Order: sequence, then C-alpha cells, then structure tokens
Amino acid sequence: MPGITAPRVVILGGGFGGLSAAQSLANAPVSVTLIDRRNHHVFTPLLYQVATAGLSPGDIASPIRWILRHQANVSVQLANVVRVDVARQTVVLEDPAGGPAAVTDEVPYDYLIVATGATHAYFGHDDWATFAPGLKSIEDATELRRRILLAFESAEYEGNEEARRAALTFGIVGGGPTGVELAGAIMEIAGHTIPRDYRHIDTRTTRVILFEGGPRLLPTFPPALSDRARRDLERLGVEVRVNAIVTDVTAHGVSIGGDFIAVGNVFWAAGVKASPLGTSLRVPLDRAGRAIVGADLTIPGHPEVFVAGDMAAATSADTGRPVPGVAQGGIQMGHFAGRTIAREVEGGSSATDRAPFVYRDKGSLAVIGKAKAVAQIGRLEVGGFLAWLLWGGIHIAFLIGFRHRLQVLLSWFWNWMLNARDARLITGEAHLRIEAPRALGFDADRTPPSSERHVA
Amino acid sequence: MPGITAPRVVILGGGFGGLSAAQSLANAPVSVTLIDRRNHHVFTPLLYQVATAGLSPGDIASPIRWILRHQANVSVQLANVVRVDVARQTVVLEDPAGGPAAVTDEVPYDYLIVATGATHAYFGHDDWATFAPGLKSIEDATELRRRILLAFESAEYEGNEEARRAALTFGIVGGGPTGVELAGAIMEIAGHTIPRDYRHIDTRTTRVILFEGGPRLLPTFPPALSDRARRDLERLGVEVRVNAIVTDVTAHGVSIGGDFIAVGNVFWAAGVKASPLGTSLRVPLDRAGRAIVGADLTIPGHPEVFVAGDMAAATSADTGRPVPGVAQGGIQMGHFAGRTIAREVEGGSSATDRAPFVYRDKGSLAVIGKAKAVAQIGRLEVGGFLAWLLWGGIHIAFLIGFRHRLQVLLSWFWNWMLNARDARLITGEAHLRIEAPRALGFDADRTPPSSERHVA
Repeated sequence: MPGITAPRVVILGGGFGGLSAAQSLANAPVSVTLIDRRNHHVFTPLLYQVATAGLSPGDIASPIRWILRHQANVSVQLANVVRVDVARQTVVLEDPAGGPAAVTDEVPYDYLIVATGATHAYFGHDDWATFAPGLKSIEDATELRRRILLAFESAEYEGNEEARRAALTFGIVGGGPTGVELAGAIMEIAGHTIPRDYRHIDTRTTRVILFEGGPRLLPTFPPALSDRARRDLERLGVEVRVNAIVTDVTAHGVSIGGDFIAVGNVFWAAGVKASPLGTSLRVPLDRAGRAIVGADLTIPGHPEVFVAGDMAAATSADTGRPVPGVAQGGIQMGHFAGRTIAREVEGGSSATDRAPFVYRDKGSLAVIGKAKAVAQIGRLEVGGFLAWLLWGGIHIAFLIGFRHRLQVLLSWFWNWMLNARDARLITGEAHLRIEAPRALGFDADRTPPSSERHVA
Repeated sequence: MPGITAPRVVILGGGFGGLSAAQSLANAPVSVTLIDRRNHHVFTPLLYQVATAGLSPGDIASPIRWILRHQANVSVQLANVVRVDVARQTVVLEDPAGGPAAVTDEVPYDYLIVATGATHAYFGHDDWATFAPGLKSIEDATELRRRILLAFESAEYEGNEEARRAALTFGIVGGGPTGVELAGAIMEIAGHTIPRDYRHIDTRTTRVILFEGGPRLLPTFPPALSDRARRDLERLGVEVRVNAIVTDVTAHGVSIGGDFIAVGNVFWAAGVKASPLGTSLRVPLDRAGRAIVGADLTIPGHPEVFVAGDMAAATSADTGRPVPGVAQGGIQMGHFAGRTIAREVEGGSSATDRAPFVYRDKGSLAVIGKAKAVAQIGRLEVGGFLAWLLWGGIHIAFLIGFRHRLQVLLSWFWNWMLNARDARLITGEAHLRIEAPRALGFDADRTPPSSERHVA
C-alpha cells in the first residue's frame, strides 16, 4: 500500500473509461479509490444478447473488485455520488444509511477522473421511457428480456386478434449498432428459436420494425455497409424504415409524423445523454450534457479533473473530429488520463506540458442476426459471415476474464448449432401478472377469451 | 393434437410434481394444460448455489415451454391461479389485463393435478420475513445473493466497529439440508473466495451461526451423519447451535429465548407452508396447510382431483410414513397422478380400483462447504469427499438439459479449482443505495465515517 503521502486519485465509474484509468495507474505511486453505484462492470457491447436471452447476465458482468483484485493500490467503493465539489476537491457521496445530510460522506482527491457514462435520452419526452425502455445496464437487459418473452406469452392466450397482432409487433427506435443488433436478434428468436414452443400462435408471424431518423442505418459506418446491413436485415424479415422521425410513443404504438403504427413492444436505441453529474462540474456542457474538455481531457481551470468516456465531449487532436461514444473511446480516454497522472506523479512531466489526446479509430462492427455482421476496420470493409467471425473474435478477446470467454463461446456455439436460447427467464416482481396486455391498452375492447380454446 | 373429445387434464404448477405429471402423460390421449405463474422450472436443490454466487440463475432454470416443447399434447400457460372451483370443475385465473372480475378467465378440466408447492412459514411471525428472507425461487436466490454481497460491501466502508462486526455476521435459521448448505457456502466465500478483493476488512473474520431448533442438524438423516455434518461445518468455522428455538427476529439480530445475538444478516431455512391454493379445495388441511389426500393422492369425494408434491400431505402405502417434502416426493407423486390418469383414459382401469401410492426413498444428500457432503442411500451412509462426488453426480444427472449440465459442471470445476465465484452480481432496484446499514438499525449511533481513511 502507498504511504500516507501518496496522491489520492478518485475515479468515478467502473465502466470502460474508469476501469481503463484504474489499470493504467497499476504501477503508479498513488492511492486510487474507484467509486461506482453498482458492484459490477458490464461488457456493454454484448448487452443486447442478454436482452434477447442468448447470454446470462453473469456471462458479461464481473465484480469490479474482482477485476482489480491484484492491484493493491486500488480500493473499490460501492456508493452513489451526489456531486463533485471541484473547489474543495472532494466528491460528495449519498449517505448509505439514508440519514440526514449532515453525515453525508465526502472523499477528497488530488486527481479526479469522472467516467460516469451516459443514459437514454428521449429528446425531451421522458414520458416515453415507460413505453420504450432502453438498454444500458444489466437491469435494463433483463427488463427487455422480460418484455420480449412476456409478449409471446400474452399473445399465446390473447383472444382478441388485433391485440394479439400488436403483442407480436416489436418496434425499435434508432438504427445504430444497438438497434440493428436488437432487431436482428428478436427476429431470430421469433423465427427460429421458439416457434415449436407455442401451440396457439405462430411466432414466425412476428413483425420487427426498425425506425431510423436519418437516411440510412448505421450512420457512422461507410454507406456500402449501411446498405449491406439493411439488405441482410430485410432478408431476415425486419422492416426497415429510414427518415422515420418518431414524434410520439404511447402504450399503443409509435407515431411517425401523422402516421400511427400499432406496436405492442417499443425499445429505445436512439439518443443518449451524459450522466447528470456533469452539471456539478460547473463547466460548459454540450447538447447531450457532456462536459466539454480540453485537449488533455481536463475541464477548464482544473488540470486535476479529467473527464473520460461518454461523459466527455472530446476531440481527437490529430483529426479535430469528436471522439465517438463507443467502448474504444472510453478505454482510450481512461488510459490517457491514467497515464498522464502516472507520469506527473512520477515526476516525469508537469501539467503545463501535457500531450494532447489522440483517438485511434480501431473500426466499427455490428451484428445482424445469427451469423452475419458488418465490419469496418481501417480500410477493410466487409459484411456477412466473415464480418461475423471478426466480430466474435474481437468481442471474445475484449471480454474480461478467461472464464467468461469460455462460457460465452460455449453459449454462442450452442445457440448457433441448435437455435437455442437458454437464458429465457422471466424474472422480477412483475412476473406474477402478465402486464403486457394492460400496457397495450386493450382493457376496454378486450374480448373475454373463449374457454373452448382449451379443447384444442 | 388430440381431438375435441380428448379429456382435459389441467396441471397447476411447473415444479417437480407438475412437470413429472405432464411428462407421464406424454403418450396419453389427453389434452394437457400446465399453468404456472412463472415461465420457468427451477432445479431447487441447487438454488443455494445461486444465492451464494456459485451459479447463475440461467444455469438451473429452464422455460417450462422449452422442457415440454416436444410433447404435442401439452399447452403451457403463464397465469396466476386465483382458486379451484371443484364443484364446477374449473380453475379460475387472475385476469391478466387487471380488468373487472367479470372477465376473469376460467379453465375447465376433467382431471386436475394441483402441484403448486410450498412457501416459507415463520411460525406465525410473518413480520420476520423482512429480516429473514427464505429460499424458494430464483428471485429469492438473487435477493439472498444481493444481501450477502452487500454485507461485505457495507462492512468495507463502515466506520463503526460494532456495526461492521454485525454486518459480517450471518445467521441461518434451520438446520435441514438448505440451512447446512447455505451456512457452508457462505463460510467458503468469506474464508476463501473474496478475502483478496477487500482492502479495509478481513472477510475471514466473518461469523456464520446455524440455529437448529431440534437436538441435531439434518434431523431426517441418520444420527451418525448429523454428527459428521456438524463436525465438518465446525471445522469450516461455522458455529452450530442446536436446541436453539428462535423466539424473535429483528433488524438487529436473533433472540433464542432470553439470549440475544447481534446478527446483521438472517436467512430463513426453517418452516414451510403449502401454497394458499389448498384452502380453495375445501378439504381438510394439515398444520402446514397441505391437503390431506387419500391413498390415490386425490381429495375426498373428488377422484378427478389429485394433489402432488409439497401441496400434499400424503403417506406411503407400504410404510404408512408421511412422504417427505423433497424433490423426489414431488417427482414420484406427479408421476403416479399422471400414470393413473393415463391408464384410466386409455380404458385399462377405473377410479374405483386404483393402486395406492408407494414412495420409494432414494436417499438423502447434503453438501457441506467445498468438497464435502453427507449421503444416505439405502443402507449406504457416507460422508466427506466420496459423498460429495455422489452428490455432484446425482444432481448433474437430474438437472434438465444437457447444456445446463455442461455449464454447471464447468462452473463447479472452475469454482473448485480457483476458489472463484463469478456470479457475484448485485442486481435490482436497490443497488443504488446500500441498504444494509439502515436495515441493521445503526442510523442513530452511527459514527460519521472518517474521510482520512481514504489515505490508507
């Protein structure tokens, strides 16, 4: 353990940015405290597979303590951060005992790395969140899984034909990688995994509609790959609607301007906004609530406060282009902040002569259904099975922990060979009631189900 | 699919009893509807391993539909059963849309098999449930896992020494197999799995106290194995207290008569009571709420209504002894009910000449810690590593699905080799706040944590 005089580095958030920062400080003479409100790091690129019952939560999440167990200069604390007091150089934590504000805990720092990430943004319509949940955490993923599986359950015993069709219609808002991957996976489940499990419905009649506000899917990919993704999705049976700006989401469906589409299950993969912690930094934020940082990823006037990952509005010093909100952005920014602090603490440099942050684009990947993907890596642009192999290899390599890699590989092999999806558990309090039909708003015009149907 | 005239068999519950009944009707000319309020069957003997982060929920639970997917005469319905109307031969379901009672769904039957199981019983002190949750479902298991992991998290940053010691004390009420297995597993985690993950506490100082009301642990096992279990648990570090009848459970601890023991985390493995559905059958119930059934497992005056598993107070025709509330009891009763119905529907026999139910005791097994167990199979009584191998082999063999067997074997191998427990996720809404200290009731006398401690 470092001595009493070791500089205190506090890292907020155990996502890609925070973890990468902590690991970059492994050999530095500092005392690191990493604070997160969850005890686990989530490998978010595979969250959609938990949402679609292909993987279990435990396959893609690890306790942060466990990941950092060999790094003696790091303490991990499970706590909710209320705000950062940049003037006093402290982080204010929510009192875990729920007592009066007077006993609130404070953690002082010499260096701070804020990497608390982003959450969903509904373009100012927060009321849509109830009807269109997003996908950022393990809890989000199990909630999506619950909704997807309950949709088929409620359709199986729904007497009203219109309600049944709505229950079997899925709308996904946002045509980025998450939207594309969710749409493909839901279509795979409905078309190949579960048809034989149901007696009263043909799940192959399921509709999946992907709404993208812009002119093409995967806007950050080369146009040729956008086309390829659209073609592959449509071949799977997904209905792709581009230039489709969602103007309303209700319990009954989605409005695109004046056009209303009855959709029983809407999922949100469109906007993100940075964690609300940004406001307490008292610095200019961009439209998405991200802190606008300098070339060294610190906030104006505070060279000891770094912001990394989805919390930061940063630009790459070589191209002048914004750093994208992907895992690689967080990893590279966290690493930069950690290395910068390590160098200065070790006395090799000072805050006045910091090199600027340069983002290295390692490419973009998105999966489409069972064994297809699109990939752009450097000058390589490829689709189909080869891209899928690339995607699988890269994701397995980046997963934390050898055991997880083995388990995920085993699950993928199994799912692929047998069209199985074994993680199909509906869990949570609400399992006691099938809530889907009520959410669909068919209470009033619902035909009482015929009891004869049991004599099939 | 059977024709319109096929007798309708309705099975309530997808546990061991219900599933075994459905499978015994695979080739019978009947139309089966299996109703459960959850979509998945749980392999309950391994639930304690989910509670102690050794396995993931998906490893021991499978969708009921998927288990029965090849059995064309079965429909599976996700619904809450409100009551059974034995006079009108219908099962009344909760209206999934939450509408007025008038639209409540009803399912008529020719034969009914009630196998809705049991829940925890607190000897008339239902208020203890908050402080001492039990272990019957996947949700229970993830709640226990959350509490166990949060106990260490709150101890790590607890400034008050008394509160910290209480947070690291676990009390388990009930010395049957579940209590013994939980106690051993928690001691294993604290002593071997996580010590290196924490910086401020030594988790090896964790106390685990097992309270048993009777004179010996595992009362249904031979006395020599009870002694062996106690010895092995004590060698692990578990404190075993027999003849310890719990008279009170609060947020602060457990009372044994006038003796109060400060325990931060209490888990309940003592009493069970049958599902409340029994009262709607309008038949005599035993003290635990189980329906007292005849030799053919049906209720008086209704040869078409079978009760199986933990819902039934049944006796074995050969010995006159009660059938124990274990997985084998459910499996054998469900099988008996299914076969009896199949024979009568096929015309081979009538309800008046039914053979009585005979329970075949296949033995008892309980695990103690990492690689020890006690086993009684026929005349064989064995403890230690050999019993553990037996236990492992039998449980793997009875798990449903080849994939689950492979995954559990892999997890066991991994946990055993590396002392790892990878499923250590704290999930659920309450992850945002560390609730343990508040539940412990240390709000008032809690010392504000020193901020200096971050400079370790």
